[in-house]
Amino acid sequence: MQFNTLILATLTASVLIQSVFADEPIQPITPAKSINAAQAELGKKLYFDPRLSKSGFISCNSCHNLSMGGTDNLTTSIGHNWQQGPINSPTVLNASMNIAQFWDGRAADLKAQAGGPIANPKEMAFTHELAVEVLASIPQYVAEFKQVFGTEKVTIDEVTQAIAEFEKTLVTPNSRFDQWLLGKKDALSADEQAGYKLFKESGCVACHNGAAVGGSSFQKMGLVEPYKTDNPAEGRKAVTGKDADRFFFKVPTLRNVELTYPYFHDGAAKTLTEAVDTMGRLQLGKKFTAEENAKVVAFLKTLTGEQPSFLIPILPPSGDKTLHPQPFNEK
Amino acid sequence: MQFNTLILATLTASVLIQSVFADEPIQPITPAKSINAAQAELGKKLYFDPRLSKSGFISCNSCHNLSMGGTDNLTTSIGHNWQQGPINSPTVLNASMNIAQFWDGRAADLKAQAGGPIANPKEMAFTHELAVEVLASIPQYVAEFKQVFGTEKVTIDEVTQAIAEFEKTLVTPNSRFDQWLLGKKDALSADEQAGYKLFKESGCVACHNGAAVGGSSFQKMGLVEPYKTDNPAEGRKAVTGKDADRFFFKVPTLRNVELTYPYFHDGAAKTLTEAVDTMGRLQLGKKFTAEENAKVVAFLKTLTGEQPSFLIPILPPSGDKTLHPQPFNEK
Repeated sequence: MQFNTLILATLTASVLIQSVFADEPIQPITPAKSINAAQAELGKKLYFDPRLSKSGFISCNSCHNLSMGGTDNLTTSIGHNWQQGPINSPTVLNASMNIAQFWDGRAADLKAQAGGPIANPKEMAFTHELAVEVLASIPQYVAEFKQVFGTEKVTIDEVTQAIAEFEKTLVTPNSRFDQWLLGKKDALSADEQAGYKLFKESGCVACHNGAAVGGSSFQKMGLVEPYKTDNPAEGRKAVTGKDADRFFFKVPTLRNVELTYPYFHDGAAKTLTEAVDTMGRLQLGKKFTAEENAKVVAFLKTLTGEQPSFLIPILPPSGDKTLHPQPFNEK
Repeated sequence: MQFNTLILATLTASVLIQSVFADEPIQPITPAKSINAAQAELGKKLYFDPRLSKSGFISCNSCHNLSMGGTDNLTTSIGHNWQQGPINSPTVLNASMNIAQFWDGRAADLKAQAGGPIANPKEMAFTHELAVEVLASIPQYVAEFKQVFGTEKVTIDEVTQAIAEFEKTLVTPNSRFDQWLLGKKDALSADEQAGYKLFKESGCVACHNGAAVGGSSFQKMGLVEPYKTDNPAEGRKAVTGKDADRFFFKVPTLRNVELTYPYFHDGAAKTLTEAVDTMGRLQLGKKFTAEENAKVVAFLKTLTGEQPSFLIPILPPSGDKTLHPQPFNEK
């Protein structure tokens, strides 16, 4: 094939592919690009390193477990000293596509988010200063920070930058739904396609759209009917201070939703069936029949993409002067 | 090369290699063999699956973290509800070479060990029955157990068998010390070789020998001088009931000892320097000079082998009827 012909063929294919999903409210996930590989590799170690917590036991991966859809699959998380977390742990998968981070969007981006749990007394219960002191006492980390960032001194800015860069790699392309969007018409069963049609026609796509099938806006939980919960989280109000923002939460991504149970900010919905039923009634004023619900659920399960695939990181050992973890001293 | 010549060359090389370390008290680690790959792959998932615990938060990997030398690097471990464990978590690396499992050897082998923490109320705090019920409610696990074991019913026997098979793969060959043993004479520095000489001549090798550099016998902690500790563990006596066995513990492997801090059954020695000093005085009646100590430590760090390298497992999602984790209900 001539070079020009190849370009032409590629362009034609590209136009064809685009035309397949151009009118759809959901777009395929594209693989991560513009990644700083060295930062991401360092960030992967930090993501798995429990020495960023006071106890030496809790890492980012504890509550955003990459073996489990980037969540902990608990109603709310377990923090330092087994404290019960205030909210359901959102998935880290495809989180780079979110309009902001945390359920209330209080962090602008992944980097801003990464520093939060480290210093939260209910989560990792450490301080940024101590976390940096620990890392700066580990010779292999010092060398790697120097190699990656060209600096002599480890700072929290570089720590969160590296973690965020790793998290940018955690996208999940090539779900069956994306294959279908891209033209592979037998990638979805008739029921799954019917579920997608219901998902669009019932109005779910008003909030759950785009490549992440959510994550792009804040919406009120309990729009048509009020949502009843014991969970005290106020959502967006905690950020803006406005009463009108009470109970507005970031619309969660539905990518990999089969893996990210339980659902909602309070983790109250244990199954997809329950979540679809509640969302239909409270947000859309629509009671899905059992058959409709099953079809929507069947569609949602086609959103499970390729999970991050990488070798488990081997963490550099502490030095003789590294601060020791303090899991029990306050008990 | 002719086939016969190849065999002859291989035999010659083998004889040559054997002759290099035949007189040494430590032998190189050989890569794992006779592994049932399908069982090990299933076992890897189970090893990382926190649903084997009551809380849904603690997996085998929590306390035997394969990113951290197969340990948790804590004095004693954190168990269900943040309970403080009674003893330092021994490394899972090369554990297949141990004479028995646990510090007191109460489990005959890896399979017998694997069931212990699941049902220990201070560790994973579950029961074998409930762990099996959880797994049997997860469709992908049921299919994988059937494929691997040919049975319709998940049993704890298969669960522990699969975990043990995975653990058999966790050997760490090709340390610099093994390279040196196998004839690569520049693999160790002069100080490291001097440290090995001291290690042999001082008597450390009396207990720390063989391919695992330990793990092959029970010995009294505090042989020459008594060992002082607040830790109530009685060691081998708890298994045999004999007073004479009080404070006899399994000699730990020194493979990867650079990664498996803190040291001793009570985790009291924070650094290798401290551990070597204590061992010299209490077990051998020998006070190492600072220079000697540093050489022994330099030698010990050459025992760090290739760490297990594998893709993080992706766990199958729970089913709608899977028992929910109970992290907080008893608080």
